[in-house]
Amino acid sequence: MSQEVLKYLQDNQQRLQDKLFEFLAIPSVSTDSAHKQDIHKAADFITTYLHDIGFENIEKQETGGHPLVYAEYNGAGSEAPTVLFYGHYDVQPADPLELWDSDPFKPEIRNERIFARGSSDDKGQVFMHLAVFEAYMKTEGKLPLNVKVCIEGEEEIGSENLYKILHEKKEQFQADFAVISDSGMVEKNQPTILYGLKGFTGIEITVNGPDHDLHSGMYGGAVRNPLMALSHILSSMKNEEEVVTVEGFYDGVEPLSDEERDLIDQVKGEDYVQATGVPETVSEKGYSAKEHTMARPTFEVNGMYGGYQGEGTKTIIPSSATAKITCRLVPGQDPERVQQLLEEHVKNVAPAGVKVEVKKEKLSAKAYKVDPDHALIKKAAASYTKAFGKETVYVRMGGSIPVVEWMEAIYQMPIVLLGFGTPDDRLHSPNESFPLDSFHKGMETLAYYWNEVNDK
Amino acid sequence: MSQEVLKYLQDNQQRLQDKLFEFLAIPSVSTDSAHKQDIHKAADFITTYLHDIGFENIEKQETGGHPLVYAEYNGAGSEAPTVLFYGHYDVQPADPLELWDSDPFKPEIRNERIFARGSSDDKGQVFMHLAVFEAYMKTEGKLPLNVKVCIEGEEEIGSENLYKILHEKKEQFQADFAVISDSGMVEKNQPTILYGLKGFTGIEITVNGPDHDLHSGMYGGAVRNPLMALSHILSSMKNEEEVVTVEGFYDGVEPLSDEERDLIDQVKGEDYVQATGVPETVSEKGYSAKEHTMARPTFEVNGMYGGYQGEGTKTIIPSSATAKITCRLVPGQDPERVQQLLEEHVKNVAPAGVKVEVKKEKLSAKAYKVDPDHALIKKAAASYTKAFGKETVYVRMGGSIPVVEWMEAIYQMPIVLLGFGTPDDRLHSPNESFPLDSFHKGMETLAYYWNEVNDK
Repeated sequence: MSQEVLKYLQDNQQRLQDKLFEFLAIPSVSTDSAHKQDIHKAADFITTYLHDIGFENIEKQETGGHPLVYAEYNGAGSEAPTVLFYGHYDVQPADPLELWDSDPFKPEIRNERIFARGSSDDKGQVFMHLAVFEAYMKTEGKLPLNVKVCIEGEEEIGSENLYKILHEKKEQFQADFAVISDSGMVEKNQPTILYGLKGFTGIEITVNGPDHDLHSGMYGGAVRNPLMALSHILSSMKNEEEVVTVEGFYDGVEPLSDEERDLIDQVKGEDYVQATGVPETVSEKGYSAKEHTMARPTFEVNGMYGGYQGEGTKTIIPSSATAKITCRLVPGQDPERVQQLLEEHVKNVAPAGVKVEVKKEKLSAKAYKVDPDHALIKKAAASYTKAFGKETVYVRMGGSIPVVEWMEAIYQMPIVLLGFGTPDDRLHSPNESFPLDSFHKGMETLAYYWNEVNDK
Repeated sequence: MSQEVLKYLQDNQQRLQDKLFEFLAIPSVSTDSAHKQDIHKAADFITTYLHDIGFENIEKQETGGHPLVYAEYNGAGSEAPTVLFYGHYDVQPADPLELWDSDPFKPEIRNERIFARGSSDDKGQVFMHLAVFEAYMKTEGKLPLNVKVCIEGEEEIGSENLYKILHEKKEQFQADFAVISDSGMVEKNQPTILYGLKGFTGIEITVNGPDHDLHSGMYGGAVRNPLMALSHILSSMKNEEEVVTVEGFYDGVEPLSDEERDLIDQVKGEDYVQATGVPETVSEKGYSAKEHTMARPTFEVNGMYGGYQGEGTKTIIPSSATAKITCRLVPGQDPERVQQLLEEHVKNVAPAGVKVEVKKEKLSAKAYKVDPDHALIKKAAASYTKAFGKETVYVRMGGSIPVVEWMEAIYQMPIVLLGFGTPDDRLHSPNESFPLDSFHKGMETLAYYWNEVNDK
C-alpha cells in the first residue's frame, strides 16, 4: 500500500467528517414505520457513495421490508480474495429524547467524540469502510481485493429479511471471508479482536385480564390484576441471585473452564459501576460480573407496561400488562429450544383469572466462536496494532450479531469482527457517541488490513 | 311538595339534558395541568347555575389548587334543617382515547344511556341536584330546607385542598347532615343505600438502576434489571392466592361475621365475569369475590412502566421502573399505618444493585360505616322507593370517598349516600355512561327526599 492512501484520508479529514455528518443526520430508525422515508434516504446515500467510489452492480434490493444495499468491486482480479463486507444503516429509536444533550440527528463534536444516534452503531463504522475504499480508488485507482458490499436496514429489528436473502441469493453473497465492523474495543484505543459473541432470542408476554380498565373500588377483590400476575410470572423466571429458573435454560451450556476464567480475568475491561452508575454490580451466583457478561447466558426484561402512567393517581385495575424479554445465549444453547422453554414456563405458571399470550421473537441466533489463531484474524490484529500502536487483545463479548451466526452457518466462511466502538459509546441509549480517534485510526486499520489480506 | 316540582322536571326534560351536555362537554380533567382552563370553565358553569337558581353567598373559593364552589340557600328559615350537599366537577383522564366509541367530551345518547366522561362520576349526579333545586325554586319559589353547596375540583386527585378547607372553615361548612351523590346502585333501577365505604391509601415505588438505558449485550450479567427487581418486590407484597403478604396489613381488620356474610350473599349484585370480561373471578383465599370486594381490604397495582414500550424489540436494560399502587381499606385499618407498613416492606425486600424510592400518596382515608336505621337514611330509602317503585337494599361497597370519612371526623354529622350510578357505567374507563332512567328517576328521588327530610 502506498502512503498515498493514508495521506488521502488525512488530507480529506474535514470533508469526510462533513459527509459522515450528512449520513448520521438521516433518522433511519428501522423499528418505527414513521421513518420509512428516512430509511430509503439512508440507503440512497450509500448507493450514491458506492457509485461515486466506482463500485459496480449496485443494487438497492427490495426485501419486503427495508431495502438492502448490495454492490461489487471485481477489479482486483480472479487471483485476489473476495471479502463480503457487512454493515447496517438503520439505527435504534432515539427516545427518550429529553435525555439527549444535543439533537440525536444533528451530529456534533464534543470532547473529541461525535455525538449522534448511529455514530457508533453502525452508521459511523459503515462510513469508515466506504471512506477507505474511496481513498484506495482515488489514490491507487483500485482496491487490493475484490469486495461484495451488503449493508442492510433491519439489523435493529432482527434482520429478518436479510436472513431470507442470504439463503436465497447464496451465490451472489458468497465470498472467501467476511468483515463486520459493528462491535467495539474493550477500551478506547485498545485494539480488540472479538472471538466470541452471544446468541439471541426473545419473547413478549401479554397478560389480558378484564376487557376494559376497571375501577379498583368496584372490582378490586373480584378479578386478577394483570400487572401483578405478570410480576409473579417474571419473578418465577429469574431469581434474586440472577439465576434463570426456567427449567432446561442452562442445558448444554459449556462449563466455563479455569483457563477461560483466567483469560476473562486478564481483560481489563471497563468499570461497570462507573460506566453505568449503578450502586454495585450484580451477577449470576457463582460468576463475576465480567464472567456473566462475557460468557454466561442472560435474561433481561427490556420493557414492561400496563395501566396508568401519567401524573398523579388513577385508581384502576388495568385491562392488560405486557413485558418484552430477550435472552443472550452462549455456545451449546439452541435459541429455538430456549424460546420454547420460556413459552412453556410462562404457560405453566400463568395464574387463573387472566389469559396469557406469548409472542415469539421471530429471529433468533446461536452464539458464535472463531479460532483466534486463524491467519485472517492474526492479520487483523497486526493491522490494529500498526494503526493504534498497541498490542491487540482477544475477547468474547455479551452482544449478539445474528448475521455472524447465519453467515457462518450458510457460507462456512471465517468472519472477522473489526470493531472500533468503545465502552462509553452509549449504544441504544441517549447521547450515543463515537471517538474521533476510533474514526481516524479505525480507517487507518482498515487501510492496512485490506493490504495485508492480499499479501500472501 | 306540590306535583308542580315533578311536572317542571318533566316539562323541562330536553332543556335540562341540553344543559347537562354543555356541562359534560367541558374536559375538566383534574390530574392533567393541561386542563387548568377547563377546570375553571366547569367551576364557572356551576357558579352561574347557582346564581340563576337563586343561591346566595356564592364563592369560587381559591384552594391553592383547583377552585371549590361554595354557595348557600337560607330561605327555609331557622327552623328548617341545613344540608351540606357535596359533589365534584372534576373527572378522570379519558385516555386511552382510541377505546371510546364516541368523543368522551361530546356527550351522546345511545341505548338509553348518556355517554361522556363524568356522566356518572360525578358531573351527571351533581347536575341532577342543581336541576332539582331549580325545579323547587321555579315552582314553589323556595327550597324545603336550607342548603350549603360544596362542589370541589380535586376529587379524582385526592381532595387534598378540600381536606384543608374543611378543617379551616369548619363553621362555614357546618350543617345538620350531608348528602353525597357520587356512588351507585347494585343494579339499574334498584334503589340502594350505601352504609359502608372502604378507606384508601397508596404508594408509588420507583426502582432506579443504571443512570441510562444500557445495551443488554454489553451489560447484561453485570447489573440488576430494575423491571425484574420491581417484579420481585411486587410479588412479595401479594401472593397468587390474592392474600396481601405485607406484615401487619390485616392487623385490626374486623372479622367478617356470618350475619354480614349472609347480608352480602343476599345482595344480587352484578355478574363480575359478564361486567368485566375476565375468564373467571379471583378473590382472597377464604372469601368470595363479593365478600372481598365489599368487605375485605384490597391491594392493586394501578400502573407500571419501565424500558421500551414501542413497536418491535429494543434490547436494553432500562434505567428505572415504576409501579403505582393503591389499597382499599376496611374498618379497623389505619391508612397512615398501612402506608408505613408498605414502605417498610419495600425497603426491606429491595435487592442489591438498585436504589428503591417510595413516594407516599398524600391523602388517605379511613373506611366508613353508618347505621342503616338512622331516620335520615330511612327517609332516603323511602324516597328512592317512591321514585323507582322498588324496595331499597342496603350494601357496603369497595369504593372510597375520602370526603365521607373527613366530614364524619370533622363535623360528626350523618352522611347520606344517595347514588344513582349503575355497575355498567364504566367509571374511570373508556365509554363511561349513565342511564337516562337514573337521571330522571334520580331527580324524582331527590325531589321527594328534600320534602321528606323537612317533614317532622
